[in-house]
Amino acid sequence: MTQNPDLVLAERHGAVLLLTLNRPDRLNAWNLDLEERYFALLDEAEADEEVRAVVVTGAGRGFCAGADMEDLAQVGNPDPEMIARMRRRPRERPLAFRKPLIAAINGPVAGLGLVQALYCDLRFTTPVAKFTTAFVRRGLVGEYGIAWLLPRLVGQSRALDLLLSGRVVLGAEALAVGLADRVLPGEELVPAALEYAADLAENCSPRSMAVVKQQVFQAMDSDLPTAIAVANKLMDESFRHGDAVEGVESYLERRVPRFAPLGAG
Amino acid sequence: MTQNPDLVLAERHGAVLLLTLNRPDRLNAWNLDLEERYFALLDEAEADEEVRAVVVTGAGRGFCAGADMEDLAQVGNPDPEMIARMRRRPRERPLAFRKPLIAAINGPVAGLGLVQALYCDLRFTTPVAKFTTAFVRRGLVGEYGIAWLLPRLVGQSRALDLLLSGRVVLGAEALAVGLADRVLPGEELVPAALEYAADLAENCSPRSMAVVKQQVFQAMDSDLPTAIAVANKLMDESFRHGDAVEGVESYLERRVPRFAPLGAG
Amino acid sequence: MTQNPDLVLAERHGAVLLLTLNRPDRLNAWNLDLEERYFALLDEAEADEEVRAVVVTGAGRGFCAGADMEDLAQVGNPDPEMIARMRRRPRERPLAFRKPLIAAINGPVAGLGLVQALYCDLRFTTPVAKFTTAFVRRGLVGEYGIAWLLPRLVGQSRALDLLLSGRVVLGAEALAVGLADRVLPGEELVPAALEYAADLAENCSPRSMAVVKQQVFQAMDSDLPTAIAVANKLMDESFRHGDAVEGVESYLERRVPRFAPLGAG
Repeated sequence: MTQNPDLVLAERHGAVLLLTLNRPDRLNAWNLDLEERYFALLDEAEADEEVRAVVVTGAGRGFCAGADMEDLAQVGNPDPEMIARMRRRPRERPLAFRKPLIAAINGPVAGLGLVQALYCDLRFTTPVAKFTTAFVRRGLVGEYGIAWLLPRLVGQSRALDLLLSGRVVLGAEALAVGLADRVLPGEELVPAALEYAADLAENCSPRSMAVVKQQVFQAMDSDLPTAIAVANKLMDESFRHGDAVEGVESYLERRVPRFAPLGAG
Repeated sequence: MTQNPDLVLAERHGAVLLLTLNRPDRLNAWNLDLEERYFALLDEAEADEEVRAVVVTGAGRGFCAGADMEDLAQVGNPDPEMIARMRRRPRERPLAFRKPLIAAINGPVAGLGLVQALYCDLRFTTPVAKFTTAFVRRGLVGEYGIAWLLPRLVGQSRALDLLLSGRVVLGAEALAVGLADRVLPGEELVPAALEYAADLAENCSPRSMAVVKQQVFQAMDSDLPTAIAVANKLMDESFRHGDAVEGVESYLERRVPRFAPLGAG
Repeated sequence: MTQNPDLVLAERHGAVLLLTLNRPDRLNAWNLDLEERYFALLDEAEADEEVRAVVVTGAGRGFCAGADMEDLAQVGNPDPEMIARMRRRPRERPLAFRKPLIAAINGPVAGLGLVQALYCDLRFTTPVAKFTTAFVRRGLVGEYGIAWLLPRLVGQSRALDLLLSGRVVLGAEALAVGLADRVLPGEELVPAALEYAADLAENCSPRSMAVVKQQVFQAMDSDLPTAIAVANKLMDESFRHGDAVEGVESYLERRVPRFAPLGAG
């Protein structure tokens, strides 16, 4: 289908791609067209050797208000075509993204918007950004794996607190409980996220980062002996890859490393 | 068997039930009679459509000192009848409670008392409340699942710290490490817990909260793809339930929702 | 093989054994000789009834800089004999250590050095100590189970932050995110770790601590019903052990307990 390129803006900053959810008049509420555009841009970024890290933020005063109310109003009477489109593609596409993905949460983030922020590797935000799961206040449940992700980010009781109450948490508390990784003044938010991503792009092996992401996600669902066995195998493979040679040499020579771009598979 | 109603006091505050462990001369030490009364009250609260959330606290200056020393003194020479009663019913009854359960920890909490506090969804406490696992200082082990629960609340090394040392932690540190969710001056503790519970009772769907609790506990023991598949099924079911319609309508109409009481099973 | 006793120093402080990684001119960089000495000392400490807890620190200004660059320089062209020695013995020996093991991180800790610090039960450190995973900056992966351990210590996104960026974290941030358990001025570090360990040695049952360590590690990979069933069995066993009788008696008599030393298996 034809995508609307305006729904998510894409802008290159060196080896970092900045994506901006762009429905500012709707607080960037999530709908299927926006999702398809966002996921298509992730596909492109993954295949593009020149992109080594991605930052995603929201246009205007918010990050993402959650599922668009026009879609939610169909609750109880859902459109079969919309449901078919929803099922066509897993909503958790970002979890399988092989490059670092940083959310720069510039304002309100709720429901499905929060889920998408949790699908990113890290979350930068501002002191006044409002976080809420919201689901139970709409008669809904913990959607799209948030009941699995949140306890692993903030611990079991803080996850229950956020999910059972659907209450609003501001940036400072989000940082304190582990829901956010950095809190910055609004005007410094996107620059700081871009700077963090640029450091990864310049100094960290793309292959190593892809392997590490996979290791962390696999390890969440494996036991420790398995994780160690997997790590030993991956370590042996890394020793035979040029990036390890370059990593040690550049370190001994005290220079910036020249790592290979991320290859396929 | 006949229960002693004085062992746990029950008091309704609107849709919130306040339970008070009531052996103040023994720091509310846990024994089988108190346990049977507490669990019976949870059974009643679960079946009572008018109760939407429960707060549990302790009478007098403590929450619960742990297993009663009269019982512990039987260590090495246990009473077969007592053991038979202990085995009759799982001690972790609160973990299966389908409504929000908030502990208001008003003072010392130790051993089995701490386990019972961890079986609640959230923990509110005061700056001077003393927390201790205590087990290793009595030659005992990590009892009743605390070795599973604690690392998921506070992380692995903090759990080892608390379990290996059996040291006393005060409210402020309990909050910092995630053992408690709120710290309040003593006189504000129970009112704050009741207020939190009242917000859940008024604004959150009882059915959604029951589903979310189940999701979080299941997700602790499942992998992410399973958790997402379960969430998708539960989300479809929630869309067909009146609470989701009411949740969206009340939101669009900017009014308090009128959610259905929690039904059976 | 003959071990060099100078590579790791051993010093008894009552029932606590202090081990010091001792290659100060190399920031105590890890190599196989140091490892074999360290692990042999752990074996001895485990068998020695008089040792009830162990503290490990580094000589000079650092804890451990990671794998020795002389070894790393063999990357791409590894020595078969060295690899054979690496494979002979699991690197995660400390995880199976049955007594409390506290790391006193006195300065820089990186890569494999950080992994070894994470294999300890707790981490004490100083405000200026530098922590880094380092791997991705050398073209390497998450080695030896760090991708499993780190998310369980600091949560998923903080683990991704530390592993994807390989950035340096100072003591204060290490404490805030759960990577360290205590931060102390440099001159108080080892004394504080020794004092903590001495408290465990004096007041906590060696058998109970060994059981609790095993419970916590097993529980990381088990579901809650299994953890409760295991705990119930272990609790019944503990009731039949002299330490439980002594634990209750010494408590009632308000005196220091006299627990039995840790037996075999």
